[in-house]
Amino acid sequence: MPYFDAASAAPLHPVAHQALLASLDEGWADPARLYREGRRARMLLDAAREAAAEAVGCRPDELVFTPSGTHAVHSGIAGTLAARRRVGRHLVTSAVEHSSVLQSAARQVADGGSASEVPVGREGAVDVAAFAQEVRADTALACLQSANHEVGTVQPVAEVAQQCREVGVPLLVDAAQSLGWGPVAGDWSLLTASAHKWGGPAGVGLLVVRKGVRYAPQGPADERESGRSPGFVNLPAIVAAAASLRAVRAEAREEAERLRALVDLIRTRVPELVPDVEVVGDAVRRLPHLVTFSCLYVDGESLLHALDGAGFSVSSGSSCTSSTLTPSHVLRAMGVLSEGNVRVSLPRGTAAPDVERFLEVLPGAVAGVRSALGAPEPAPPAPNDAAVSSVVVDALGKRCPIPVIELAKVIGSVPPGGTVTVLADDTAARLDIPAWCEMRGQEYVGEEQRERGTAYVVRRVG
Amino acid sequence: MPYFDAASAAPLHPVAHQALLASLDEGWADPARLYREGRRARMLLDAAREAAAEAVGCRPDELVFTPSGTHAVHSGIAGTLAARRRVGRHLVTSAVEHSSVLQSAARQVADGGSASEVPVGREGAVDVAAFAQEVRADTALACLQSANHEVGTVQPVAEVAQQCREVGVPLLVDAAQSLGWGPVAGDWSLLTASAHKWGGPAGVGLLVVRKGVRYAPQGPADERESGRSPGFVNLPAIVAAAASLRAVRAEAREEAERLRALVDLIRTRVPELVPDVEVVGDAVRRLPHLVTFSCLYVDGESLLHALDGAGFSVSSGSSCTSSTLTPSHVLRAMGVLSEGNVRVSLPRGTAAPDVERFLEVLPGAVAGVRSALGAPEPAPPAPNDAAVSSVVVDALGKRCPIPVIELAKVIGSVPPGGTVTVLADDTAARLDIPAWCEMRGQEYVGEEQRERGTAYVVRRVG
Repeated sequence: MPYFDAASAAPLHPVAHQALLASLDEGWADPARLYREGRRARMLLDAAREAAAEAVGCRPDELVFTPSGTHAVHSGIAGTLAARRRVGRHLVTSAVEHSSVLQSAARQVADGGSASEVPVGREGAVDVAAFAQEVRADTALACLQSANHEVGTVQPVAEVAQQCREVGVPLLVDAAQSLGWGPVAGDWSLLTASAHKWGGPAGVGLLVVRKGVRYAPQGPADERESGRSPGFVNLPAIVAAAASLRAVRAEAREEAERLRALVDLIRTRVPELVPDVEVVGDAVRRLPHLVTFSCLYVDGESLLHALDGAGFSVSSGSSCTSSTLTPSHVLRAMGVLSEGNVRVSLPRGTAAPDVERFLEVLPGAVAGVRSALGAPEPAPPAPNDAAVSSVVVDALGKRCPIPVIELAKVIGSVPPGGTVTVLADDTAARLDIPAWCEMRGQEYVGEEQRERGTAYVVRRVG
Repeated sequence: MPYFDAASAAPLHPVAHQALLASLDEGWADPARLYREGRRARMLLDAAREAAAEAVGCRPDELVFTPSGTHAVHSGIAGTLAARRRVGRHLVTSAVEHSSVLQSAARQVADGGSASEVPVGREGAVDVAAFAQEVRADTALACLQSANHEVGTVQPVAEVAQQCREVGVPLLVDAAQSLGWGPVAGDWSLLTASAHKWGGPAGVGLLVVRKGVRYAPQGPADERESGRSPGFVNLPAIVAAAASLRAVRAEAREEAERLRALVDLIRTRVPELVPDVEVVGDAVRRLPHLVTFSCLYVDGESLLHALDGAGFSVSSGSSCTSSTLTPSHVLRAMGVLSEGNVRVSLPRGTAAPDVERFLEVLPGAVAGVRSALGAPEPAPPAPNDAAVSSVVVDALGKRCPIPVIELAKVIGSVPPGGTVTVLADDTAARLDIPAWCEMRGQEYVGEEQRERGTAYVVRRVG
């Protein structure tokens, strides 16, 4: 049963499994204690810190273990903002950061600070100059992920770090998705990561604060982990995390090459096998194991269920798969199609035949969902000489992808130059109607707020 | 090799070990995902929450899992203080809470709120009326541990909860030391606990917030665990925590009886076997597995090393074993002797012969340390007719237990009615000189600050 959602959580690496087992017996005591069990725990903790620091490329005393990547991000941002409060209260992030970063920014704004989101291009990457422009005299911290967790695009971290360094602003790099593949290049100031993304156990994050970076831990004082991560140290998991990081790094080059070829296969074949698909994310500057595409006239949840039924576990950034019924903020920031969105992230060791079978199963799964929704055929609208030059479609109360399907169904009923106005209150429509226009070569005129919902206006071109 | 420090961290219970192994394979995926691995993880998480809630005696939707007991305490206090900010910013705790509670109180004061510490009696328990008196109209939260982690004294939680309930103030109970032995009685509002204290794995705490208690999670928003505990859920550890809680509860009654008898043996025999020992904590209202005593003229660190050399792992609240070189705040609050302090906390399954061997080893270990320090014999001072009726001992720069040893050496050189003034700058002296007077039947006159250190005045009585 192929599991293709390594970007959410990777199955436990065999080395992590083994190290965890061994340290359950050896590493349960408090490393702060003076007796033999404590001394043994301290030695294991020191060794794990050294191994992790070596993989990151930092000094052991710059690295602490946290209970999760999210804790590392929350602490790293809060601790730097507090220490640099005299400089200012402005935070810069990209628009496509992990929610733990964006929620930290929201917190900062709620607490009276300010935050700027640097937009990304259609491939998902920030522009270095645009990022640098947001960094101001009162900027306390800038944050940029090493690679995006939803579309795999690698960010220009080293260049951004250089720009930040020149104006004396620390850069925090969320390396959750990439640390297993290699160290983060560049002169960054803080780095965070999460062990269960590289095949380590849950319950372990990393927070690295370079020497010389002003940092003030927030919350109640606690002496453990240099005062930067409160609570009893989860040592067996830490030992397993460090051991597996070393193990995945040893295999990284070869495995990245192998998975990159499998992802390339998906990137090439999916648009050939499935009509009306948009593959998103940078084709070259990307993570080796991750690819995302969106399928017109498909709802993500039904497609996930169809794939799950066929034995494939993938995730989606479509609105219907989110608890808030909004499309992924990453897809929104990129301005790409969000309906029928599928993220495939291959765990290490994924077998080529599993990927091939996925490519066999996918077209039928998409066709099945489209057929159930009554989606139009992908043929271009026939020429039309009807006198009615404008049509209004009421899709209020209809969820993604219905408003787009309704639009596609009626576009042929107005003549070239005529308009279709779609009334919709589903949040995905704002993203997917312009995306449909781009894919279909029609003109997106714009939107206007109505008493109920929004009116999206499309002009028929061809 | 007997490990007698269960109150720091208990070795992993076999059921926890087994459950952890099983759920490493079954429970590594994200329980928020829709595919089969996610659904399986969700089922495991729901089952663990139900089991833990049943053991606590609460509804499953009142309980969330946190990364540690410390996180549960920090979040529980911060979330309640924030939600009740309009009522006031006053926090009440006992003086002998865990550092995570007292550091939260310090944080509250640093943030502009206020905090009161309710003192304890010589046995380590708060007085219900004294506690109730500190709860004011502007009190946002009161905190009381179920049982003390250093001396084992059980607190009158149900009575204090009743008092708090009557004035509408929520009570948070830190049940870290007792939850494995049974549910916390009484009408408390919040409860926290830590799995590695009951034989569960590290990395799991519990935070229970009763329905109807106003609560506002602090820090950046995160949808996991009802928004009350951020970060990826550490599911294998949670499953192991819940399974082991159920297992230790099933054995609790019988095992408590067995360990209580072993602790009673220590409480009775230690003062018979070792001269000048003070057993501290309540003899009756106490945890079944924990006993603490202090040995005059002994430094805790040397005694710990001697016991460790003989194969026994215990902890100590003596100043010399702390990173801050101050005696345990619990012993300070109780006003008991802190030098030569030993805490014995028996893990489940401790064998009687191990306790018997400890009692064989202890007298020699104490005698060895005393002899190395040149401690005086425990004989009372001989009658003395010396004309010198007051002596000053300069113990500045000398660490615990030297100032007390110096005092004991010279008390016989002044006549009854004469005084000895000890100059000391070691923080333990403030606690241990009055404690010595009480043990020796001498009169503690008082202390006064000097330019350097403190002068402690003792009047010879007998």
